[in-house]
Amino acid sequence: MADHRVTMLGTGLIGLFYTQTLHGGRGRDRVHVVYSRSAERADAFARENGVPNTSTDLEEAVAHPETDVVVVGLPNHLHEQAIELCARHGKAVLCTKPLARNAGEAKRILDTVEDAGVFAGYLEDLVYTPKTLKAVQAVRSGQIGAVTWARSRETHPGPHSAWFWDRERAGGGAIVDLGCHCIEIIRSFMGKGNRPLAVFAWADTLVHPIDAEDNAVCLVRFESGALGQFEVSWTFRGGMDLRDEVAGTHGTIWLNHFLRTGFEMFSAGGGGGYVAEKAETSAGWLFPVGDEVSELGYADMFNDMFAAIDGGTEPQETFYDGYVVNSIMDACYASAKAGTWAPIELEWRGGTTPRIATTPERYEGQVVIKREILPDGRHKLILKDEKSGDFSDRIVAAG
Amino acid sequence: MADHRVTMLGTGLIGLFYTQTLHGGRGRDRVHVVYSRSAERADAFARENGVPNTSTDLEEAVAHPETDVVVVGLPNHLHEQAIELCARHGKAVLCTKPLARNAGEAKRILDTVEDAGVFAGYLEDLVYTPKTLKAVQAVRSGQIGAVTWARSRETHPGPHSAWFWDRERAGGGAIVDLGCHCIEIIRSFMGKGNRPLAVFAWADTLVHPIDAEDNAVCLVRFESGALGQFEVSWTFRGGMDLRDEVAGTHGTIWLNHFLRTGFEMFSAGGGGGYVAEKAETSAGWLFPVGDEVSELGYADMFNDMFAAIDGGTEPQETFYDGYVVNSIMDACYASAKAGTWAPIELEWRGGTTPRIATTPERYEGQVVIKREILPDGRHKLILKDEKSGDFSDRIVAAG
Amino acid sequence: MADHRVTMLGTGLIGLFYTQTLHGGRGRDRVHVVYSRSAERADAFARENGVPNTSTDLEEAVAHPETDVVVVGLPNHLHEQAIELCARHGKAVLCTKPLARNAGEAKRILDTVEDAGVFAGYLEDLVYTPKTLKAVQAVRSGQIGAVTWARSRETHPGPHSAWFWDRERAGGGAIVDLGCHCIEIIRSFMGKGNRPLAVFAWADTLVHPIDAEDNAVCLVRFESGALGQFEVSWTFRGGMDLRDEVAGTHGTIWLNHFLRTGFEMFSAGGGGGYVAEKAETSAGWLFPVGDEVSELGYADMFNDMFAAIDGGTEPQETFYDGYVVNSIMDACYASAKAGTWAPIELEWRGGTTPRIATTPERYEGQVVIKREILPDGRHKLILKDEKSGDFSDRIVAAG
Amino acid sequence: MADHRVTMLGTGLIGLFYTQTLHGGRGRDRVHVVYSRSAERADAFARENGVPNTSTDLEEAVAHPETDVVVVGLPNHLHEQAIELCARHGKAVLCTKPLARNAGEAKRILDTVEDAGVFAGYLEDLVYTPKTLKAVQAVRSGQIGAVTWARSRETHPGPHSAWFWDRERAGGGAIVDLGCHCIEIIRSFMGKGNRPLAVFAWADTLVHPIDAEDNAVCLVRFESGALGQFEVSWTFRGGMDLRDEVAGTHGTIWLNHFLRTGFEMFSAGGGGGYVAEKAETSAGWLFPVGDEVSELGYADMFNDMFAAIDGGTEPQETFYDGYVVNSIMDACYASAKAGTWAPIELEWRGGTTPRIATTPERYEGQVVIKREILPDGRHKLILKDEKSGDFSDRIVAAG
Repeated sequence: MADHRVTMLGTGLIGLFYTQTLHGGRGRDRVHVVYSRSAERADAFARENGVPNTSTDLEEAVAHPETDVVVVGLPNHLHEQAIELCARHGKAVLCTKPLARNAGEAKRILDTVEDAGVFAGYLEDLVYTPKTLKAVQAVRSGQIGAVTWARSRETHPGPHSAWFWDRERAGGGAIVDLGCHCIEIIRSFMGKGNRPLAVFAWADTLVHPIDAEDNAVCLVRFESGALGQFEVSWTFRGGMDLRDEVAGTHGTIWLNHFLRTGFEMFSAGGGGGYVAEKAETSAGWLFPVGDEVSELGYADMFNDMFAAIDGGTEPQETFYDGYVVNSIMDACYASAKAGTWAPIELEWRGGTTPRIATTPERYEGQVVIKREILPDGRHKLILKDEKSGDFSDRIVAAG
Repeated sequence: MADHRVTMLGTGLIGLFYTQTLHGGRGRDRVHVVYSRSAERADAFARENGVPNTSTDLEEAVAHPETDVVVVGLPNHLHEQAIELCARHGKAVLCTKPLARNAGEAKRILDTVEDAGVFAGYLEDLVYTPKTLKAVQAVRSGQIGAVTWARSRETHPGPHSAWFWDRERAGGGAIVDLGCHCIEIIRSFMGKGNRPLAVFAWADTLVHPIDAEDNAVCLVRFESGALGQFEVSWTFRGGMDLRDEVAGTHGTIWLNHFLRTGFEMFSAGGGGGYVAEKAETSAGWLFPVGDEVSELGYADMFNDMFAAIDGGTEPQETFYDGYVVNSIMDACYASAKAGTWAPIELEWRGGTTPRIATTPERYEGQVVIKREILPDGRHKLILKDEKSGDFSDRIVAAG
Repeated sequence: MADHRVTMLGTGLIGLFYTQTLHGGRGRDRVHVVYSRSAERADAFARENGVPNTSTDLEEAVAHPETDVVVVGLPNHLHEQAIELCARHGKAVLCTKPLARNAGEAKRILDTVEDAGVFAGYLEDLVYTPKTLKAVQAVRSGQIGAVTWARSRETHPGPHSAWFWDRERAGGGAIVDLGCHCIEIIRSFMGKGNRPLAVFAWADTLVHPIDAEDNAVCLVRFESGALGQFEVSWTFRGGMDLRDEVAGTHGTIWLNHFLRTGFEMFSAGGGGGYVAEKAETSAGWLFPVGDEVSELGYADMFNDMFAAIDGGTEPQETFYDGYVVNSIMDACYASAKAGTWAPIELEWRGGTTPRIATTPERYEGQVVIKREILPDGRHKLILKDEKSGDFSDRIVAAG
Repeated sequence: MADHRVTMLGTGLIGLFYTQTLHGGRGRDRVHVVYSRSAERADAFARENGVPNTSTDLEEAVAHPETDVVVVGLPNHLHEQAIELCARHGKAVLCTKPLARNAGEAKRILDTVEDAGVFAGYLEDLVYTPKTLKAVQAVRSGQIGAVTWARSRETHPGPHSAWFWDRERAGGGAIVDLGCHCIEIIRSFMGKGNRPLAVFAWADTLVHPIDAEDNAVCLVRFESGALGQFEVSWTFRGGMDLRDEVAGTHGTIWLNHFLRTGFEMFSAGGGGGYVAEKAETSAGWLFPVGDEVSELGYADMFNDMFAAIDGGTEPQETFYDGYVVNSIMDACYASAKAGTWAPIELEWRGGTTPRIATTPERYEGQVVIKREILPDGRHKLILKDEKSGDFSDRIVAAG
């Protein structure tokens, strides 16, 4: 395991979370240079986080001779330029989500790092939450059978910096800000090799006086027949709602990452204090999260990234994944406009996936559609005669 | 309050639940006649539920001179005929859900009872659950502001009688069986006068060897701009999942009717016993419901129906509501086939609803897009300059 | 089933809940006379609840010729007098909890009704909640094995009427107000025939400027070896906390009756409105209960009482149960004062209960203390050699 | 920050968890030597965990010239000897919980390290869970007012190694195994300077064929008047139940560390796989924990220990804390035997704590005992006249 020195580009909330993650605990990796357009913000950030060097020159920061990894924590419209500089200077680059504002930009970024041969990791934290990692592992080991449906929901009262609200700089609204997480969560449960074929999206601006959408619901059809579904909103009231559900032929998974994690507090007020990201109040019933950077996946994400750099392997989330996400989001906007399914256009590298298939139980030559336990303990079978197509009920003893 | 004598048509699970509800507690209303095609089933039902009369003749049962109310608890394809008989014999009729197999059939049924002038109530139990009644009341009193989105989810491992699985007799699959509940739950939260305009639906048969859909996700656009969303499945594993979520401009509601209601039990097995409708196991962690007929709304539903009969008023759920539900379901099937939004075609009686509108806070001449509490207690404002369209951040003191 | 006409003694919160329960739904029983010391309160109550007759004379109300059942909803120090009048006038009497202020008073009351031969039911609602009824049934059917421990917790910010806070009129503080519920809940899970032997109690007045205890924790030892435990408080913040837990040799039960029942609402405020009994706020995250009188057991309690009157049987909760509760509470106060276990002195009618016994699994001649599944799927046995008393580990294949 | 090389004493479950924690992520500290009595187990452990050196000689392992920190992960009866060796060889020592089998042994251990002047940290992981750390911080910042009561519950079906079940080697049963966690959790919420005065304990052996207690409930009185309460069991069914509750004059905290943390899975079986420590089944409803070593506090515990070593400060949990825990457990056993409160005998270093005090609101010269919101929005005051001691109700307008 090597010790890495990092150039951090950006001093916003995401740069802060990344730096706190790297500097937390007993980590061997340190932020060595921090970049901001504003010298004042760079200095304040360096002082508060123990970073030895600052810069207001993007290329200087990237090219700093004592760092080997660059973390891009800038607004979306600045990713491409920053990553080009990393490629030019041969630096490993880790880019915050979304990779770009649209698939075209994402593809150019992907080509840039692949042409340059630099390590490139996509910082999609929410697929690295400890719960998600373990749930994905459970799915892969067959504990819930074949996945038929996955829902990812990310909603809160709206993002915390002005540029998010500006469609030009962000590339979109709630879909780009939040949907990018949901898409990768859904892909992780579906299997990365399960091709997303088409999207249907509803998007509207219901509450905020902005041009971008503040609410959207999107459906993603996968090659296996399974359906992904995500809901994003900048108008949710009650804090930050991060929940995922997965249905399989033999089981179900429900994850709650934020508002109901086993920590519940009532406060009549007083004492003040920070509750959690995007919490709305500091009195009444509150639902804090134990360790936010860990629960939101930042810790395991950086562990995976540095392990991949050290091991010369691919990280779990690559720039190709970021490009897939942007392609799906582009299809969302196309669908929302057209009101029909929109095909997902992308260079697919993932192979093919067969349709979900199950072998039904048989009983006396007929297909068992369902076996249900009655209140009296007997079993009720719904049978289908394959020749006639007729359905019938049959009560049988248990077992 | 009058005492009513009821003719119960049908001896299946729904007829049993209805009868147990009427006969439970200290109720003044009794099932006086029970009808089944099978004399054996009618007799068994009468014996087990203390019903004095049986019949295997539908018209005879409806026309029984000592009953004033008929409850239709028959498979979907038999509703129209039974209701015609009720109209002919001037009986108040209460019909289980869905009202019909499609909007055309529903409209004929509606016309029949309206022409005859008989009382007609639509037995949509899930809008009568105590939680839903109180939650709808909270929405109407303004506690969560204007509704922007409502989700209703009803999934389980599949229905308990053969006819449900037969598209001809049922009129469809999971959408008709389960979606009819979801639609009325969503309409109750949106407001019955808020016109449903169009539907988008995904439907597929992923697991069971049947023609009808076993999974569907449907979106319903309302005149106010709000979106309804429902998920139905006959392939869910883990019991019966009945959850609703409502988002408003000033609040949020989450309801869980079945699997997480404050009753949790682990059993290493032994003792046997019924856990809950559609529970899959009797060992491990179990989530029973205290009083199923009450929690599922049957008690409050019949209270409302008989009170409306006695008072000469309309019940909360009418045959017109049943017709609206069938119209929306027809649009679901049309949309699922076409892959685009399908308009909802119906005779609308509900008036018009204005678009969701909010008046944003202003700060020094700019629009406040968002006000967020920072960890240090100060407030961060996102401001929009209406002339330039530019967004900016501003940190201000609390309050 | 007969129709009953009821004299309601008392117009406080409990009298209101009882009357709403009786008059709710399609019930056949009605409050026919209401008594209050204050003519103004009696009239207001009669008007609001549709009660045809009022009285400010206790005996006149009890003796009213058109009522056959008297419900005692008066402060604790008035129970004895009211019940004496019921006995004298041969009326069936249902008395709110606790039966009396102490065991001596309770015993006199018990003797009075038994000597007079009138029907007497003890209105302990919380053992009649639908969840408790089903959970007790699960325990009796063996689903969790032999009960080893039961915890009942009832806490809130303090009662709603002045007399509760007055030790003289109430007979005590939080133990008498809330512990009486807990004791019957615990006895219901332990089995009514399982004799409570001794009590240990801690009680203190930590917050309120009163003489009575505002917090207490009490342990009750039962003849089977099982331990009951209850916690009561008038200083809890966050609403009304009603939870029960039961541990058995083969299972576990957790019940939550109030703050987490599957109904969750966030409101930014506005709309006002009642949330739930003893809720502290009407904004922030709120946890309403669907139908309070049903969830708190009032409906099933009166159903049982009237069914017992009609059937000439004993209700589930009798005055003898009320007397047992008072005996246990007397022991609590004695123990809290002495700081040691206090024996429970009562006339026991319940027979004897053997000690909890389990037959351990054996493996190769040794006792299997524990069988645990390892992460790799093998089983780890902890074995005890009965001759030597030595313990050892053994890893074996699964199954 | 220095890099530390660690000698790990013991290759059981606790040694494995410790090593996985140290070696997980991007940590700079490594286990360099592992000791076991059995060369086979030492070799296997070293191989599986990447540890370069093994030893079957305790002193050799402790004295290894390339390690500066020794972690004691041995059965309880071997702690004293191991710590003596650490003191003799001037090594920083971190000892697993409990520190010793009784207070006498703990005191000798404490004296040994203090006389030698070596760094000594007490590895009580459960006060370091992210939830507990944040909850303790919330309490200290005043968010729930003065603590009046804290409950800690740790129960599961029994420990995983033979020596735990042997009272001689372990020093006791469930109280020593599990109560040691609960006591430090309670002390953390009460404030470490709040002296524990006396204990009441009930302990019994209800299920397992052993001499030690398999169930206990203990109460701890603190100088402030607050009560600590803990429940421990080796007979709980359903997994590992780790919950804490804290009540304060202005708020409430509920923590659930294991069975309900926002990760819920139903599996019809198949796929196998490890669910969580002490989980009982791999089918049905399962409640895995995202990242066990993090959620159980191991990560933050070692971070604190090494930061304290590096900074020359005291860790959050010291050997003095371990000694206090043993003193309280000794009092538990004394109390369980005597059936009365047992004083806690210890050398107290923590100063004094005043009694919980609150200043009641006043209204028109009287003390406001309670202010409650009525369904109609008005406020109901319970007032106490301090001269007469009389209580009365008063309805007033809101606000």
